[in-house]
Amino acid sequence: MYALTVRDHMMVAHSLPHPAFGPAQRLHGATYVIELTIRRERLGEEGIVIDIGEATTLLKDAIADLDYTNLDDHPDLAGVLTTTETLARFIADRVAGRLPGGMYSAMDVTLREHPDAWATYTRQL
Amino acid sequence: MYALTVRDHMMVAHSLPHPAFGPAQRLHGATYVIELTIRRERLGEEGIVIDIGEATTLLKDAIADLDYTNLDDHPDLAGVLTTTETLARFIADRVAGRLPGGMYSAMDVTLREHPDAWATYTRQL
Amino acid sequence: MYALTVRDHMMVAHSLPHPAFGPAQRLHGATYVIELTIRRERLGEEGIVIDIGEATTLLKDAIADLDYTNLDDHPDLAGVLTTTETLARFIADRVAGRLPGGMYSAMDVTLREHPDAWATYTRQL
Amino acid sequence: MYALTVRDHMMVAHSLPHPAFGPAQRLHGATYVIELTIRRERLGEEGIVIDIGEATTLLKDAIADLDYTNLDDHPDLAGVLTTTETLARFIADRVAGRLPGGMYSAMDVTLREHPDAWATYTRQL
Amino acid sequence: MYALTVRDHMMVAHSLPHPAFGPAQRLHGATYVIELTIRRERLGEEGIVIDIGEATTLLKDAIADLDYTNLDDHPDLAGVLTTTETLARFIADRVAGRLPGGMYSAMDVTLREHPDAWATYTRQL
Amino acid sequence: MYALTVRDHMMVAHSLPHPAFGPAQRLHGATYVIELTIRRERLGEEGIVIDIGEATTLLKDAIADLDYTNLDDHPDLAGVLTTTETLARFIADRVAGRLPGGMYSAMDVTLREHPDAWATYTRQL
Repeated sequence: MYALTVRDHMMVAHSLPHPAFGPAQRLHGATYVIELTIRRERLGEEGIVIDIGEATTLLKDAIADLDYTNLDDHPDLAGVLTTTETLARFIADRVAGRLPGGMYSAMDVTLREHPDAWATYTRQL
Repeated sequence: MYALTVRDHMMVAHSLPHPAFGPAQRLHGATYVIELTIRRERLGEEGIVIDIGEATTLLKDAIADLDYTNLDDHPDLAGVLTTTETLARFIADRVAGRLPGGMYSAMDVTLREHPDAWATYTRQL
Repeated sequence: MYALTVRDHMMVAHSLPHPAFGPAQRLHGATYVIELTIRRERLGEEGIVIDIGEATTLLKDAIADLDYTNLDDHPDLAGVLTTTETLARFIADRVAGRLPGGMYSAMDVTLREHPDAWATYTRQL
Repeated sequence: MYALTVRDHMMVAHSLPHPAFGPAQRLHGATYVIELTIRRERLGEEGIVIDIGEATTLLKDAIADLDYTNLDDHPDLAGVLTTTETLARFIADRVAGRLPGGMYSAMDVTLREHPDAWATYTRQL
Repeated sequence: MYALTVRDHMMVAHSLPHPAFGPAQRLHGATYVIELTIRRERLGEEGIVIDIGEATTLLKDAIADLDYTNLDDHPDLAGVLTTTETLARFIADRVAGRLPGGMYSAMDVTLREHPDAWATYTRQL
Repeated sequence: MYALTVRDHMMVAHSLPHPAFGPAQRLHGATYVIELTIRRERLGEEGIVIDIGEATTLLKDAIADLDYTNLDDHPDLAGVLTTTETLARFIADRVAGRLPGGMYSAMDVTLREHPDAWATYTRQL
């Protein structure tokens, strides 16, 4: 099994309006450092899981309308608690929707919100 | 599948009194940077695997009586070779004993002992 | 010359309402990883620049009312462009105001806003 | 399940002579930071997956004839597109060939080629 | 005093044909992670040392014709021992040549060649 | 001005028997990640501050009798409070004693004791 990971980041505002989140209920923000991992059983003739440039573009496109915004105002996230876990899935599903079927086996998206906490969503492809 | 990771550290003395360990048979020490990962199949209504603050507290409680000590004197570790692998399991089992049943699927504890070596223990929940 | 550095972070929303800042004019956010360095010519009898716990508390106190907020609403930052450089100085000056005079020679505050960009403010003490 | 990871690096020249690789078709180079992870279901009497020194030596031996070379001239890599994925497998298979059978369950080799891209090969043992 | 740092990287082949360099006399390669720091006494009305986007472009332009090449073939480096120190100065001087005079006080360029070694060149502006 | 840095680490036990140090008065331990920086105004004909291998050996030699020991038992540290700052100076002075005079201008030794705290000692040469 092979895996290829690319990394990018986004800088967003958001709030988590649920009593469970203490001070994070207030409007605040985060730099999310994002790792996209794509897994594949066998390599093709080029000897790669996916081209690094192509994977980088897939990730960048998936976060382009989130970066430098207030997630509370994003129409696709209306009514969603934008926890790190939820955002990881949101980004993963966006990338998955643009990958060709039948080639890759699974993917992970990890969002690092600060040096001591991060979350990962893993899904089949 | 979702995973949430929190990170902390502890600063301990210990020795590894077995001929396999060369100079580490002597009393020496380590800063163990510790990552606790908790895995869960589905998120609850709050959109999280576990609250980051709660996970941080679970990890801190699990290492509180180890931090700033000589592990060779710890009653729960008497006669135990406190290798990185063994300590990872010791901490994981302590955390697991305080997690509610039926909610989480698995956990990992990784201990980084220096920039070029680390160990992980993974268990079901 | 000796230096002691402690590290913490804060998660804030803000906007940079000046045409120079492109998309950062919009409300967005950042995890600022913050390093506070205190410099001193000679050590005291305890062999330290400053106690690590005390330095950690100084930094935490200096950012307590910023963390998990929207900086655009902070009264002390009204009308201020909260660039990384400006925030570094704001935090440094707050810490400096609580350090005893005549003991330390200089300090730096570095704010890392993402893996590929950071800013430092250095001042005499 | 336990895992032990050691880390090393190598500094190589190579080219990727296939139209898919754009500017990387030219002779260029990389510092590959390499992580070798060995997995094992149960620990032996010494409480370790594998001795850290032994794992470090296994990895160093596996890359000794690659480090400080031009991979395009290596006889074992003639006609091979030395992508990060392919090199990860090449190193993993070399290490696997020197591990005793029946003791370990799986291994990973991760090669980090720059801060924003890395690849992993995972195999059974 | 303020400082702003941006980071990028380049992947190059080169050799160091001098008996002092042991195995590095052979053609090999490196990923150089490059940090460009620009220092300034006072901030302008925008509250910045230099725009992060502009600094990033300055650095990228300074390394564009080096990245994905064999430095041994670069006309501007003919007869030069392309040590990490020398490359740091080469890049710094290129950036300095494109900065406006009278605004900045100093700059540093750091090249990290592997996790355990890096070099910095510092110059006045 | 040029600087060259190499990095190593040591794993030690020690205690800090002074009331200022709270729980660190007890026997505990640390992995100190150590960075040695050597500064020089002009490069020699080889284009380097100092050979990376030579600097690495200088640092390794300076910590060889500390690594995997209990610093409380080291004859050269009898009666010394082995704070991070004090150890940084101890190592720096040892390295300085083995450097040729008249060639280098200054040096720094940084000891990182955990991800959120480190100390540096700087001296002229």
